[in-house]
Order: sequence, then structure tokens, then C-alpha cells
Amino acid sequence: MVPHLVTALTGPINELEQRILESTPVIERWFRLEWMEHTPPFYSSVDIRNAGFKLAPVDTNLYPGGWNNLTPEMLPLAVQAAMAAIEKICPEAKNLLLVPENHTRNMFYLMNVAQLQKIFYQAGLNVRLGSMNPEIKEATTFDLPNGEQVTLEPLIRHNRRIGLKDFDPCTILLNNDLSAGVPGILEDLHEQFLLPPLHAGWHVRKKSQHFKAYEEVAKRFGKLLGMDPWLINPLFNSCGEVNFAEGTGMECLQTNVDALLGKIRRKYKEYGINEKPFVVVKADNGTYGMGIMTVRDAKELDSLNRRTKNKMNVIKDGQVVNDVIIQEGVLTNERVNDAVAEPVVYMLDRYVVGGFYRVHADRGVDENLNAPGASFVPLAFEKGAQQPQPGYKPGASVPNRFYMYGVIGRLAMLAASYELEATDPNAEVYD
Amino acid sequence: MVPHLVTALTGPINELEQRILESTPVIERWFRLEWMEHTPPFYSSVDIRNAGFKLAPVDTNLYPGGWNNLTPEMLPLAVQAAMAAIEKICPEAKNLLLVPENHTRNMFYLMNVAQLQKIFYQAGLNVRLGSMNPEIKEATTFDLPNGEQVTLEPLIRHNRRIGLKDFDPCTILLNNDLSAGVPGILEDLHEQFLLPPLHAGWHVRKKSQHFKAYEEVAKRFGKLLGMDPWLINPLFNSCGEVNFAEGTGMECLQTNVDALLGKIRRKYKEYGINEKPFVVVKADNGTYGMGIMTVRDAKELDSLNRRTKNKMNVIKDGQVVNDVIIQEGVLTNERVNDAVAEPVVYMLDRYVVGGFYRVHADRGVDENLNAPGASFVPLAFEKGAQQPQPGYKPGASVPNRFYMYGVIGRLAMLAASYELEATDPNAEVYD
Repeated sequence: MVPHLVTALTGPINELEQRILESTPVIERWFRLEWMEHTPPFYSSVDIRNAGFKLAPVDTNLYPGGWNNLTPEMLPLAVQAAMAAIEKICPEAKNLLLVPENHTRNMFYLMNVAQLQKIFYQAGLNVRLGSMNPEIKEATTFDLPNGEQVTLEPLIRHNRRIGLKDFDPCTILLNNDLSAGVPGILEDLHEQFLLPPLHAGWHVRKKSQHFKAYEEVAKRFGKLLGMDPWLINPLFNSCGEVNFAEGTGMECLQTNVDALLGKIRRKYKEYGINEKPFVVVKADNGTYGMGIMTVRDAKELDSLNRRTKNKMNVIKDGQVVNDVIIQEGVLTNERVNDAVAEPVVYMLDRYVVGGFYRVHADRGVDENLNAPGASFVPLAFEKGAQQPQPGYKPGASVPNRFYMYGVIGRLAMLAASYELEATDPNAEVYD
Repeated sequence: MVPHLVTALTGPINELEQRILESTPVIERWFRLEWMEHTPPFYSSVDIRNAGFKLAPVDTNLYPGGWNNLTPEMLPLAVQAAMAAIEKICPEAKNLLLVPENHTRNMFYLMNVAQLQKIFYQAGLNVRLGSMNPEIKEATTFDLPNGEQVTLEPLIRHNRRIGLKDFDPCTILLNNDLSAGVPGILEDLHEQFLLPPLHAGWHVRKKSQHFKAYEEVAKRFGKLLGMDPWLINPLFNSCGEVNFAEGTGMECLQTNVDALLGKIRRKYKEYGINEKPFVVVKADNGTYGMGIMTVRDAKELDSLNRRTKNKMNVIKDGQVVNDVIIQEGVLTNERVNDAVAEPVVYMLDRYVVGGFYRVHADRGVDENLNAPGASFVPLAFEKGAQQPQPGYKPGASVPNRFYMYGVIGRLAMLAASYELEATDPNAEVYD
């Protein structure tokens, strides 16, 4: 179950959604059993695109920002989930140190940090913010546009523990995706809980690894519901040794783009879909919507302009791109005020705690919306659910259009859990 | 943390509330540690009265009805808590059998049952309703005033399991308080999970036992916060061998009423409270607001009229009263539309999932509101919380007036947990 939220999609429920809504007890039990075997990421957000005929996660974030875009009504759900998570990991914890990204001039990001602080305070922890930004030399308070404040303090390392002046936390929550690698100050902390673990950072993660795990999850879920996993799984290939600046590795890219477009075309034919297939080429370790381009024909790669090459070559924190993933493009057929929109689902521990729409007025249905100019439309709780529903049958709630997104979000989260198990440097190996 | 709800109390926050709000991380951690040692009741509701100068639980229900009075916005919280509870108790469960009270003509009660069915369905269980009412001889569907329906089916015993026709549940949830004792059909079920356990029924429970446990909890909580436990603890005495019909045992009652009024008077003096003390005499095992009277002077007991004697003599399911509890009366200083109101807090597992006000236009501030003519005002989520709050400090949310009620509700729930441990017939005893 996920919050009952208004969705942008107003058309009739398609067959896939109907199947998912009818299978609630089966799906929820399946997740329950999965979480007996696998540990959910501490928190996560998943971008989803709904083409009507298929829907799929396109990005799974293990250091989610944007918590400020959740409405106050969703806060109790987040707090309750945080309580459940803390109780399992460190019930005796008093203090939580939150380590944010270094950008102190982005007020939206700081509002996200303030919201996380609020959630974990209300869940029962003293929360303070430890910054790795060298500009933060002493406790510094920022006034936020919504009237709130946050105080960043310099992170201090003392032997094998980190903390702040007069603040020794037993638990550290990272909200920094480690794109540039693990800073020395965070290494070898064996006495404190570090959440998520360091290998969840983008210096280790690869999108191709994540979507390989997701493919496995989608297959098993498809079997459970008796449906073609393609309906929820974006096809993909990957290429290493690509260099956009020097133009090397482009044959691999073209061959794979072409092959993938062919595969999608056959699937479209099978389902009688009259859309033009496209793929999305992404940096395999890219975040923040950087290093992404839409390709409709492999020939487009012959003549990339300088701007595109630059965009694809270097991503967050100056990382140069060598590995790329070529992923089936999923149209988004949702609109908010005529602008293209995609839902983002937020999870804390195993629970869906809220979501919103990412909306971009200047982008097309086949483009990346996580780009400058995007705005966020918080999802409200569904008002219609308060009305009497004549003909209501026991056990069948009003269609909750957001339920399906919560299911897909959790499938992606489960894939991230498989992924983290596979990349865990401290995993116990039984040969 | 509890849902951020509008409360009826509009006065300034008193010192006690301020203390509780400021101590959120300390309080939440304390609860976390308590729940490591003690098992929360599966679900519960607690009636609370707020006199302004003190507040206290007055009734703790371990088979709560009235779930239909929670607003749809609270449903996701209840579902999330239900998921957490199921996951701990029986993660592999597919089917849940809900056993309601026998009153099939009370539409409000049936709406409560429908709401519980909805919560556990969305948490991932196939939920069906098994009635012990002999009038239910086959599956019978009731149309509810809100347009929904519920279907009651006759409960079937098969060897050492109960179920319905073609429905074999691994878990059974009772929503029947067993005032009349345990029906044979529920005895010796050793292969199925029975929630709550049978000894949580009113054939075993005594209010005096509950409030003794609550007194202990209040003392420890008072120590934690450095405050007089009386501020949250109603004083009480008890008498056995009372017979209202025959007028026996009245001396015990008068002596205790007099002693308790004296104690309250001294406390009122200590705090400079200019109110007239009163006590509430209740059947020690009474439910449904039955067998309750307000007494302002021990002399009133000399001349009880026939109506009062009858009211006190026989309670739910025809049980005769012999044991009574004499409890410090707590005024309620909350009003909804000028009518006296008391908050009711709902909990599922260790989580506060919602609440509402019980309102009675014809009752006074010192009377029992759980009586015919009561109505229920659902609490909305606090709208003010959405507004920017200039001067907001990190970690300090807008005062959540309902937070305090959630804390008191949970203290009473913790007392119920102690109480169930003490009365557990299967408890392991270490001498």
C-alpha cells in the first residue's frame, strides 16, 4: 500500500494497472517475503515514466534529495517509516549526523536537508548537519525561502569517529552521492553506523548493474502476475571505453543503439504500438540528470555537435564518462498543466512514503525531464477517496492510481538491494 | 511523532505540553527502548481527557472499534503500521480472519469492521469476516450507509483450527472484547495466530490492573522528564464484593471515595487549582461506557436511585458488577462547537495512526462522554503546518497539539503491554 494520491494520468485504467490493483494482497505478500531475504536501502527515490502501454523506472537514487517537495500531509508517513528503520538498525541511537552535498548556495537543496532533519527529529533523534564543504569553517546558519533555517557545521574526524564539536553521533546518514569518490574523512569508520553504506555511492554504482538486477526482479514479478516483464522493464545494452571528446568507441555505441532500436521495434509490433522507438544514452555512473541524450536513429551519433559531446563527456564533480548505458526510451504520457510530467516515488526503509511530479514545460515526451527548468508538483492525498462510493465491494478500494507507481518504485528499490548485495565489499562469500 | 492534527484546545500551550514537545527525541528514544523489552498490543485505542492542568488516559481498549471515524488521509499511516505489524508477527500470512462483535444491526460498528478490512487488505492480506453470531447461518452481505458493503460469514471450527467455508487463515484478528468470556470455538487454537491473545479480553482484564501498570509507567516517564507523574496519572482505589442491587459493599465504596476525594483536594491545593474534585466509579471490567457514574461527595452513595443502581449493577453481555474502581475524575476542557469533547487516540503496533474527538452536547465537563448521543469529529491534518513559519528554528516544528495526546496514548498502550505480560497464562516464569 502506498499513499492514496492524485495522479496526473486521467485516462481509463489500462490492463496492467488493473492487474496490479487487483493483485494487492499477492504483491504485498511477495514484497514481505523478499524483505525477509534482502535488506532494503535506508532511503531511496525512483523516477518513473508511464507510456500508457508500459511503465518503467528510469533512475533509482540511493541518496535522494527533493524531500522538501513532499507535502506536510506526507510527513507522518515518512516519520513513521523512519522510526521503523531506526528501530531495526540502531534503536539505542540518540544522535544522528546528516552529511549533505557540498552545494550551500542551492536553497532548494538546503530545504531538502531541513526536511530530512525534521523527519529524523520527529522520529526521535537529535539531528545535526556535518558539512564536508571546506567553506564551512564554523557553524553557519542559512535562512531558507520558506522561513526555516538550517545550520551547517564543519565535520570533524577524531581517530576512528566523525562528528561535530560536542556532538558524537552513533549513526551517520549520507545525503551525498559520492560521485567524486569517498572522501578520506569517511573512510574506515568502523565504530559508527554509516547509512547508506559507502558502496552505494556513484563511485561504485553503475546504472547497467542496477538495471541488470532490475531485469531479474521484473522477470520474477512478471511470473508472479503472469505478465510479460517487458511491460515494466526497459531493455538496455552497455558500452565501455567510450570517449565522447575524442570520438572513440562510437562504433560500439552505434551498433548497440541500432540493435536496441530493432528490439524495441519488434516489441512495439508485437503489441501493435504506433510510436517511434527511441533510446536514451546515459553515463553509466551519471547523476543529477547529467550525461544523458535521446537518440532516435544510430546515424545521429555520426554528427554529434560540440555541445552534446561536452555534455556527454563530463558529468557531476568533473567525472569523465567512459562507460555508457543505452536504454530503451519510455515515453511519458502524463501531463500536469499541459507540461510533460513524470512521477517520482520516495521510499524510506521498505515503505513508500510519498511522491510528486517532476514537470518540464520545455521538454518533449521522449526527453529527460531532470534538467534546468524542471519544477515539482507535490501530490495531494486523493480527495475523491473521501466520497461515498456506491457499489463499493469489500476489499476493493477506490482505484489508487499512485499504487502502481509505488509498486514499480519498490521493484526498483528491491533491485538496488540486490545490487548492493552484489557489490558489498564486506559480503560473506560461501564457496 | 504522531500525525499533525488540528486539536480542539485553542488556549496557550501549558507547561506540561511545552515540556513534552521539547523532549521529542528523548521521549521517542525512551519508547524505542521500551519496545525492545515489551511487546506492544496489536492494536489499541485510548480515551484521553485534558483538564488543562493535567491530562490522563481514562480508558484503554485492546479491541478498538470506531476505525471508521478515522479520515481517509490517515489510512496510509494505519496501513503502513499494519504492514510493520504483520511483518513481525506472520510475514508469510496470506489470509486474515477478522472476528467482529455480534451486533449486526449497528451500522456504525459494521463500518468500523469494513474499515479494518480495508486496512489489512491494503497491507497485503485477503481479509474475510467470521461471525460468532448464531443468526449468521450463511454468507450475509450488509449495505452500509456510506455505500460500502460487508459480508459476514459463519465461523467454522475444524479440529484445532477455525476458518470459513474454503478459507483457512493462519492469523485471526479479534475485534470482539470477550466481555462474556471466551467462546468455546476460540479455545485451544494452537496452530493459528490469535490477535490479540485471549487474555486481553474483558473476562480477564481489570481496569484496576491496567491503571496500576499505568501508574508505574507514569512514574518512570515522570522521572525521565523531571515532572510530577500526577500531571498525567489519575489516582485510583478499588473495592471488591460490591453489589449495587443488594446495596452491599457500600461502606468500602464510601470510604474509598472519601479518601480519594481528600487526596485529590490536597493535590489541587498544591497546584492552586480552583476546581471541585470528583471521582468516577466504574465497573472494574466494564466496557462500552457502561457501568460508570460520577461522584462529587461520598454521601451521594447513601441514596442511589433505582436507575443508577441498575446501571451500575449489570454491564455489557449481562455481566454482574462486583469489583469497582474509584478513579480520580479528570475534567475535559476541550470543546468542539461548544460541546464537551475528549480526544481518542488510535494505535496499531507501536505507532499512533490517527484520532478523533468524541463529543457529547448533553454532558458536562465531569461526565462520561461514551454514552448514547455521542458523536465523533474526525481530526483533520493541520493545515497551518503548510504555511511558511518565520522564525522557525531547525528541529522545532510548529507546535503539534496532538503530539502530546499521542504520547499519553502510547504510555497507556505500554501499560497495557505490562498488564498483558502480568496476566499471560503462558508466560515463562523464572523463579
